[in-house]
Amino acid sequence: MTSSSSDELNLTREKTNKSYSFDDVRGWRRFRVLRPGRGMYHDIKRRLPYYRSDITDAFTYRVIASTIRMYFVNLLPAIAYTLDMYRRTGEFYGVNEALFSSALAAIVFSILGAQPLTIVGITGLISLFNFTIYDIIQIYDISIYPQFMCWTGIWAAIFHWLVSFFNLCDYMRYVTDFSSEAFGMYVGIIYIIKGVEELVYEFSSEGNTAGYLSCIIAILYFGTIYGLEKLGSSTIWKPGFREILADYAYVFGTIFWVGFAHIPGNLASAHISKVPIVKAFHPTQPRSWLIDFWNLDLKWIFVALPFGLLVMLLFYYDHNISSLTAQARQFPLKKPGGFHWDFFLLGCTTFVASILGLPMPNGLVPQAPVHTDSLTIYETRLKVIPLSEGEDTEIRSPIVEATAVVEQRVSHFLMGLALIGTMTGPLLVVLHTMPSAVFAGVFFVVGWGSIESNGILQKLIFLMSEDRFIQRDEPLRTIPNKKLYLYVGLQILGVAVTVAISQTIAAIGFPVLIILLIPLRSVLMPRWFSLHELRVLDDLTATNKAVLASLGGAPALPEETREEDWGLERRRSEGRRGVPRQRVGSINR
Amino acid sequence: MTSSSSDELNLTREKTNKSYSFDDVRGWRRFRVLRPGRGMYHDIKRRLPYYRSDITDAFTYRVIASTIRMYFVNLLPAIAYTLDMYRRTGEFYGVNEALFSSALAAIVFSILGAQPLTIVGITGLISLFNFTIYDIIQIYDISIYPQFMCWTGIWAAIFHWLVSFFNLCDYMRYVTDFSSEAFGMYVGIIYIIKGVEELVYEFSSEGNTAGYLSCIIAILYFGTIYGLEKLGSSTIWKPGFREILADYAYVFGTIFWVGFAHIPGNLASAHISKVPIVKAFHPTQPRSWLIDFWNLDLKWIFVALPFGLLVMLLFYYDHNISSLTAQARQFPLKKPGGFHWDFFLLGCTTFVASILGLPMPNGLVPQAPVHTDSLTIYETRLKVIPLSEGEDTEIRSPIVEATAVVEQRVSHFLMGLALIGTMTGPLLVVLHTMPSAVFAGVFFVVGWGSIESNGILQKLIFLMSEDRFIQRDEPLRTIPNKKLYLYVGLQILGVAVTVAISQTIAAIGFPVLIILLIPLRSVLMPRWFSLHELRVLDDLTATNKAVLASLGGAPALPEETREEDWGLERRRSEGRRGVPRQRVGSINR
Repeated sequence: MTSSSSDELNLTREKTNKSYSFDDVRGWRRFRVLRPGRGMYHDIKRRLPYYRSDITDAFTYRVIASTIRMYFVNLLPAIAYTLDMYRRTGEFYGVNEALFSSALAAIVFSILGAQPLTIVGITGLISLFNFTIYDIIQIYDISIYPQFMCWTGIWAAIFHWLVSFFNLCDYMRYVTDFSSEAFGMYVGIIYIIKGVEELVYEFSSEGNTAGYLSCIIAILYFGTIYGLEKLGSSTIWKPGFREILADYAYVFGTIFWVGFAHIPGNLASAHISKVPIVKAFHPTQPRSWLIDFWNLDLKWIFVALPFGLLVMLLFYYDHNISSLTAQARQFPLKKPGGFHWDFFLLGCTTFVASILGLPMPNGLVPQAPVHTDSLTIYETRLKVIPLSEGEDTEIRSPIVEATAVVEQRVSHFLMGLALIGTMTGPLLVVLHTMPSAVFAGVFFVVGWGSIESNGILQKLIFLMSEDRFIQRDEPLRTIPNKKLYLYVGLQILGVAVTVAISQTIAAIGFPVLIILLIPLRSVLMPRWFSLHELRVLDDLTATNKAVLASLGGAPALPEETREEDWGLERRRSEGRRGVPRQRVGSINR
Repeated sequence: MTSSSSDELNLTREKTNKSYSFDDVRGWRRFRVLRPGRGMYHDIKRRLPYYRSDITDAFTYRVIASTIRMYFVNLLPAIAYTLDMYRRTGEFYGVNEALFSSALAAIVFSILGAQPLTIVGITGLISLFNFTIYDIIQIYDISIYPQFMCWTGIWAAIFHWLVSFFNLCDYMRYVTDFSSEAFGMYVGIIYIIKGVEELVYEFSSEGNTAGYLSCIIAILYFGTIYGLEKLGSSTIWKPGFREILADYAYVFGTIFWVGFAHIPGNLASAHISKVPIVKAFHPTQPRSWLIDFWNLDLKWIFVALPFGLLVMLLFYYDHNISSLTAQARQFPLKKPGGFHWDFFLLGCTTFVASILGLPMPNGLVPQAPVHTDSLTIYETRLKVIPLSEGEDTEIRSPIVEATAVVEQRVSHFLMGLALIGTMTGPLLVVLHTMPSAVFAGVFFVVGWGSIESNGILQKLIFLMSEDRFIQRDEPLRTIPNKKLYLYVGLQILGVAVTVAISQTIAAIGFPVLIILLIPLRSVLMPRWFSLHELRVLDDLTATNKAVLASLGGAPALPEETREEDWGLERRRSEGRRGVPRQRVGSINR
């Protein structure tokens, strides 16, 4: 909630807020499942009036910068996950499938999505899912893998439609930083493990020389992107130049290191592995695009049902969290979103992806908020703190303010067109020049970004710091250390269990564990922590009323307080240093 | 000058200050060259009364920490330079010569030196000198290289003795940050070039696999030491634990990465090159220790004379700068030094080293101040800045204070014994396990440390920063940007010319260029800059009266002002953040 919100906005919010809610009604009308389609209906009704402005608002430079940045930030990780998935699913899912899936999702969600800010594509988690199922199917009969995956997707699509019809996305309003920080940390750790695995694979497939060179490229690629983004958030050079560094860090870094790997001599002769490609617009395997899903035994069709449920649970959390963080507190959004409608759409893309044998796309956690960030107009303002000693003594520090967001659907659509372009022959050849090592570097950047800015790490640093140097008004100081350890300990336990399970064949169960953190937080934790403690430590992930409107309004948490009383720790930090910029890798902050 | 200086100290200073000066005398007595040996006489007279306390003061933990830290900080770079020198002097100077020379210097200067804080050993510059002379001699007759180097050293020793007898070290008191920053930057750049050359050599000698692995080890070794030292200067964990990190960063990093290179499998099978050793206590070449310097044609003996002069000029600047920075402003020293006597001693070690065919040792620029630093008792105090807004608002920040220095000669002596120990067979074998890549990492740490903290870089960052975020009381803001660019430009020109010349066969001429910066600063620059500008930008490198006593008191600079009026920029920074800790690589700060 920023002070820049106009009266018009408040009006919109009140209107939308009232249009969809189950809080103030009685009788059978209280039960959301008894009023199917109500959420979707209101989502469309709420967003449709903005459709024209979603196009006319797009004539500004930020949309161009956003399109280029998002093309790289979407494409690079998608291919990185695909490299992994390709090897571990018997080369069933390849680059063409990943590009097709990403393009499909981008076109569908940019044209039809209620919230076009949410970028949808291939995640590391669906890759983990796909190859874990491959490992399981391999025990029985690997030839049915395509059809089995197809049915998993069909079931998942059906569950998506059920969830969206019965308004069950509403429960996402209970998501607080407690679980989204744990999820961010989990994703970060998995990404870094993936990066290491990518490098280890280079040693075993291409030999030691290629392996060591790949390690160097991955490390220095990480250093390049990290350094460019740090420079972009410093006070060196002019604001415009810093903006270019922040916008195009991935572009510069990727072009440089891809070129580096091709320098003739020792570098080119190391023969490090490149992205494997096949003929443009053709499936990686010799098959037609449509999967023959009718050729599967009935028993396997029903075995696929629980797998489909797990996919839906994964997407329920992952997609909605992406959408929530793309519309998180720090962005001064004016247009409403629509969780029910978007989840219905996601069911449709899941269905299409599965019958075509593509990896199923869903909301991208780091990329979706980065998209909003790339469209946000930031101003680095000067904050002068006067000191009480002396006349003209003062402390000057920069403070970042998010003044507006260019909310539109054109950047998402253009990115989708660029992805379709990448599927053509000439650009596929360009993709083939990219060493796998660069993608290991992408994993490190995205993974570390998610860990460095994570609230769990921040609280751990607080616990390890010398107390005398901590500012006296730091809200965390009002909480007993024992409670702090308990809170962080619960988060770390959640992360540890999910990371551990991801390394086993039970990996597909991890969405259940992540989702269990939400009731743990809202039911059990209020018994162990005082209201004040929770108010300092935790916060709703989305507090913007325009966003919560689609979820039936702000949640009635067990502790009845005003929204302004929550997230004391975050509010203080923002008061001192301004809004944290969404770095490419960072999640939840 | 800290407030902790006691009355006793002031008394000592006044006494020592009066004992040696040419400023207040008239007639022929004004000319220092007409009163030979006066400086040395007073150096001994001034220091001798402290000799007993130099031993009795040493019974404290800091001396143990200092001995271990200095052993690594002295040994690692010495071997790093020797690897380079070994290959580029036809394997004449090897590890045994380097160890012998370092041990000789440590024993002589710890027992007989007037300022035992100044660590003396093998520098990168003498390595550059030795192999450049090798390149020159190679044009004529390479067989005379040992004898020619020996005569170069003999002449250098004679020039040392002349300089110290005729009190010419006095001119070092004119050294300001202008030239010592330029020298620090020069040394930093040369070190990083050396590190890269070390890695390039690995590719050509051991192949690509070893080369790439070496790059990884060097980069991560750099990251390890850098990270540990950053942690050591943070406010995380207890002060005692941070102190251990800062004291033993090199120890931990070196043990870890040497071990890493020996892990069986891909790492060990890469066969990266290790430190080459020969039989303990024997010269690397099959020769007796004594060089047959009498077997050299008379013409070559005289050709060696100008080379000897250049060695002396190098040592005049390099050794005295090491000694000055080891006794620099920020250390609260109470015991006096003795530049004339130490330079005489350096002549003696130069003589002995040259007739034994060792690389000539001299004062080590990063290591000497690090030695004082390792003996300094730092306290991280809390600084509370009250804000004028509100009642209990305040800003808390850590401020580092140097409260005392354990001035003694035992740590230096024990380090010398440890070096002698390293010359024995078993420890030589341990040395042989160390990969060259670790030494490339040492070059990067030392080199970057010298660049990062350098005043040239700091001023460049100021020039590039957005003015609105710079504190209003920043003294650099009172100077026109044009003048700032001129000042930094002159420094960069000096650095560029010396770096460029170091890559050619004229490399041995670089001491002349560096020394020319001193008259440039004290004669020409006062015409181009106003007194105020120079006072902000520049400062005497040593301002401690106990130190300046040996140089005939504080210099009469063309601009007559009090010492407190100088170094406004530095004084302000120290007032805000405290004394900068001397990191292992940093020079001059």
